[in-house]
Amino acid sequence: MNKLNPPSRTARRLVVLKSQRGAACGRVCLVGAGPGDPELLTVKAARLIAAADVIVHDGLVSNAVLALASPQARLVSVAKRKSRHSYAQDDVNAMLIAFAREGLDVVRLKGGDPFVFGRGGEELEACRAANIACEVIPGVTAALAAGASAGAPLTHRGAAQAVTFVTGHASGGAAPDLDWPDLARANRTVVFYMSLSTAASVSEKLISAGREPSTPALIVENASLPDERVIITCLDHLGAASADVSGPAVLIVGEAMALAAVSSPSAFAAVKDAVR
Amino acid sequence: MNKLNPPSRTARRLVVLKSQRGAACGRVCLVGAGPGDPELLTVKAARLIAAADVIVHDGLVSNAVLALASPQARLVSVAKRKSRHSYAQDDVNAMLIAFAREGLDVVRLKGGDPFVFGRGGEELEACRAANIACEVIPGVTAALAAGASAGAPLTHRGAAQAVTFVTGHASGGAAPDLDWPDLARANRTVVFYMSLSTAASVSEKLISAGREPSTPALIVENASLPDERVIITCLDHLGAASADVSGPAVLIVGEAMALAAVSSPSAFAAVKDAVR
Repeated sequence: MNKLNPPSRTARRLVVLKSQRGAACGRVCLVGAGPGDPELLTVKAARLIAAADVIVHDGLVSNAVLALASPQARLVSVAKRKSRHSYAQDDVNAMLIAFAREGLDVVRLKGGDPFVFGRGGEELEACRAANIACEVIPGVTAALAAGASAGAPLTHRGAAQAVTFVTGHASGGAAPDLDWPDLARANRTVVFYMSLSTAASVSEKLISAGREPSTPALIVENASLPDERVIITCLDHLGAASADVSGPAVLIVGEAMALAAVSSPSAFAAVKDAVR
Repeated sequence: MNKLNPPSRTARRLVVLKSQRGAACGRVCLVGAGPGDPELLTVKAARLIAAADVIVHDGLVSNAVLALASPQARLVSVAKRKSRHSYAQDDVNAMLIAFAREGLDVVRLKGGDPFVFGRGGEELEACRAANIACEVIPGVTAALAAGASAGAPLTHRGAAQAVTFVTGHASGGAAPDLDWPDLARANRTVVFYMSLSTAASVSEKLISAGREPSTPALIVENASLPDERVIITCLDHLGAASADVSGPAVLIVGEAMALAAVSSPSAFAAVKDAVR
């Protein structure tokens, strides 16, 4: 895997290859990488990754997925990291456009789905404004992978007639600015993305707004990856249960989460009784 | 492709093969088939489909996807059809269990994702109660494919801080029983599954509950398939715009749908101005 290079230099090197093929202007594909397991990539995503000249990826894209890239491809990480310079969204947009203008096939690879908390809309708008062809390839968003892994349906007759995805991300562990009375209604599933640090606030706010403290809840860490962990809890224990979770995780709250099981049918029955 | 057979007879025939391999009890995989384009299957779904002894599928699974099955596999359609006997959910559950008990590898193939309006939870519960191993493989749900095709993000900074999936399905074109004031709030995306026949009611109810009549809205028919159609409209025209749509479709309502584009960046700009 190649390490990060400034886009201009990288693009200059790769355009040689491309010019020999006679290509004029490249294109950008915003590709959902799914939850991490390379088997949960779509067939199309796997094909585009293997064929890309350059892959611009964020931190949620697993190494197993990146390993599918061509040995000739340049991989550029724009992961947000505290320890070094992070790319602002405008920098990423400019990078995608610059690569495409050099005639390269650019894959912008995002964990999950590009249009669910992936800021894909902003990149698409930037490409359109620059007259760069841009295609969006959907992916399995984390909520779907988490529900599948936990054996807990996001919608379920009599227990969840709707499912909502929100982000509970807020700076400094503060409570995010969400419509709590709405999210607190019974018989619906709410999936919180990027909310680990605000799990205690999320729990308090939902309970204050009227959701039952005993509502089943899950934390699914590293969904679909070898180190995946499913924590089965309930709403009023969500903060405590999140204390030792450090990987990327979704929190899921809702009556249908009572169906979550860890392994065998018998373990399931025990868990279900305990939650109820 | 083999035509439908009653499960008992089918299972009896296939178990011979399986017994020769020495298998004891089979298993059931609830597999998301995605929106229809076989390239939007996950790699895992494609692998399981190709390896299955028997595939029990509903009507939303495309022929292109079913064509990936082994020539030896038995395909059983449990599609809901007005013209002939439909399987009740209990019948489907019993069929999956019966096949697995015969030692077969059973793939229960569902359009989209098994846990988003797919009734996968009910089948999983039935398998657990029968002590049949059951694995769930997530898929690209229709909302994700529709947003990607239309070039309209389901979440977007400043325009959609949450996305909700609901079903507007109700008998006889009546208005479905949903929490309209909640769905009518601005700056969120609402995706209605199986709601074509109630599009006019959905529109009226949302407007009555306070959502702006000019809110951008989409109808995406046959998302990801060759005959896909994206209709760009706004909330108060949703009923009229759905009049000539007959294929499986999702309705999407929300400010971020203003980003939808049909083809080129210039067409996009025109559409965006018109919607605003």
